Amino acid sequence: MARYLVTGAAGFIGSAIVDRLLADGAHVVGVDNLSTGKLRFLESARGTGRFEFVTKDLLEPDALSGLLSPDTAAVFHLAANADVRFGPDHPRRDLEQNTIVTWNVLEAMRKAGARHIVFSSTGSVYGETKVFPTPEACPFPIQTSLYGASKVAAEGLLQAYAESFGIRASIFRFVSIVGERYRHGHVLDFTAQLLRDPTRLRILGNGQQRKSYLYIGDCIDAIQVALAAPQPRPVEIYNLGTDEYISVDDSIAAICAELKVQPEREYSGGDRGWIGDNPFIFLDCARIRALGWQPRLTIRDGVRATVRYLLANRWLLEEAKS
Amino acid sequence: MARYLVTGAAGFIGSAIVDRLLADGAHVVGVDNLSTGKLRFLESARGTGRFEFVTKDLLEPDALSGLLSPDTAAVFHLAANADVRFGPDHPRRDLEQNTIVTWNVLEAMRKAGARHIVFSSTGSVYGETKVFPTPEACPFPIQTSLYGASKVAAEGLLQAYAESFGIRASIFRFVSIVGERYRHGHVLDFTAQLLRDPTRLRILGNGQQRKSYLYIGDCIDAIQVALAAPQPRPVEIYNLGTDEYISVDDSIAAICAELKVQPEREYSGGDRGWIGDNPFIFLDCARIRALGWQPRLTIRDGVRATVRYLLANRWLLEEAKS
Repeated sequence: MARYLVTGAAGFIGSAIVDRLLADGAHVVGVDNLSTGKLRFLESARGTGRFEFVTKDLLEPDALSGLLSPDTAAVFHLAANADVRFGPDHPRRDLEQNTIVTWNVLEAMRKAGARHIVFSSTGSVYGETKVFPTPEACPFPIQTSLYGASKVAAEGLLQAYAESFGIRASIFRFVSIVGERYRHGHVLDFTAQLLRDPTRLRILGNGQQRKSYLYIGDCIDAIQVALAAPQPRPVEIYNLGTDEYISVDDSIAAICAELKVQPEREYSGGDRGWIGDNPFIFLDCARIRALGWQPRLTIRDGVRATVRYLLANRWLLEEAKS
Repeated sequence: MARYLVTGAAGFIGSAIVDRLLADGAHVVGVDNLSTGKLRFLESARGTGRFEFVTKDLLEPDALSGLLSPDTAAVFHLAANADVRFGPDHPRRDLEQNTIVTWNVLEAMRKAGARHIVFSSTGSVYGETKVFPTPEACPFPIQTSLYGASKVAAEGLLQAYAESFGIRASIFRFVSIVGERYRHGHVLDFTAQLLRDPTRLRILGNGQQRKSYLYIGDCIDAIQVALAAPQPRPVEIYNLGTDEYISVDDSIAAICAELKVQPEREYSGGDRGWIGDNPFIFLDCARIRALGWQPRLTIRDGVRATVRYLLANRWLLEEAKS
């Protein structure tokens, strides 16, 4: 029975990976500091009898000691500060949670003899690229956010550990993910606003920002497809996204259709929602598609599924308010 | 009188920048933790009456408090762990000295209102690129050393601070630098070996590794030329190197000519000197050349100047032994 360790196990994407690994019959150790993770996301995992949960702060250098061994088939490192927007309000958080924590995980793996790390990077690493759709090997980008910078730094650490210590690294650069257990970002913000007042909607930016979203189920499928493929090189990097994009305005239309509301829209203006916001993230996913993967849900269907999930799980909206 | 702060002021490149800024009439505060820096490199600086030296460990978050202000014309951030080769022996050192320290410097600048950082990056950020000579916008590279990874991380932090907080960043990606005050790397290793025993020379790798070196005086010239040019964008990146390269064997020939010795050569073999060694770094320097800069010394002349300097400063060879 394969044994895995998942960091950020109580998070949106981490808990989905936990569930998928368990569904495939594996034994999983989940680690989370519960700063933003939700134990409710792990209820079904706990029911399997093959899941073990440990509350640990990975900023502590020895957090993973005793939890890894040469028998650990892979470490899925999902723990991260995923809040891009408020980066400038706490400029050390991305460095600590995304870069230093990744170093701590790699060092724990090296000491314990664990050999494979699967890492959630981001399309934000492409900063303000001028190449769309953006392939993995686009021109060396300039970072625009502390979040993107911290993930580029983490990727570099994985790559150097692969070269120096024989660790294998599978790096996935995501667009924003939507779907079940989604709990921050514009679909939640807009849904929450419209449930409070269905007659008006305040929008950061001019509504023309184009974004590419991927449905969580498709994201997990893609990771599994990539990991099942031969990995001849120590480091493999895959963009994960859809071959389409959507404007914020069109996304709002999908949200309003699902909620059956028709609000007045009030725009703050400008082509960016906030400082460091990428006006456009749209990834070239030819590499992962060449392995036979393709998304099952369109962006619009993914957004609508997310709204339905939020309506059925209003506790997330309540928590987001506080 | 312009005021500058130089970190790593007692180092090889840092002290050369200090001397140049003072020669141009500026006031300079130099900071160094003296872990590898040499106060002897600052003797002429101290004689000017416009130089102030502070011993500080930049890993301490408040190390620069009181030393920066909105009147600081620029921070030259040269403090770094520059030892690429032994990275795997102390895997946290690059993270701390090159990434976290850079964050500390940026954060101190933000708090104090200092607006311009000049940063010594490295051609090692290109990892195992396949593009030669390598331009600044080559395909998004894969890191091969902890050193390169830590510098990519630092570059990303500078870029994110530029976008988020209005700090201006001038980033220089160096090839290896040689010349006066050079004190680690193969020219020193070979010179030291040959002074001990002029009849034999042990060489890591097969001698065919090709490297590009730049003379320290040309390096400082290039930085000054770049800083004098208009900087319309918040982040400017320049490769600094020569338009030629040299094999380790040819470099040895230059060293032997300067020392007037003819040793037997013993090769350890392989196309890399050590794990993580880049077999080839050769930068496309068209960007800095377009500003009118060109190196005055060839690589061969730079290597010979370095050997002459080491012969006149044997205390450096003595220290390297211990």
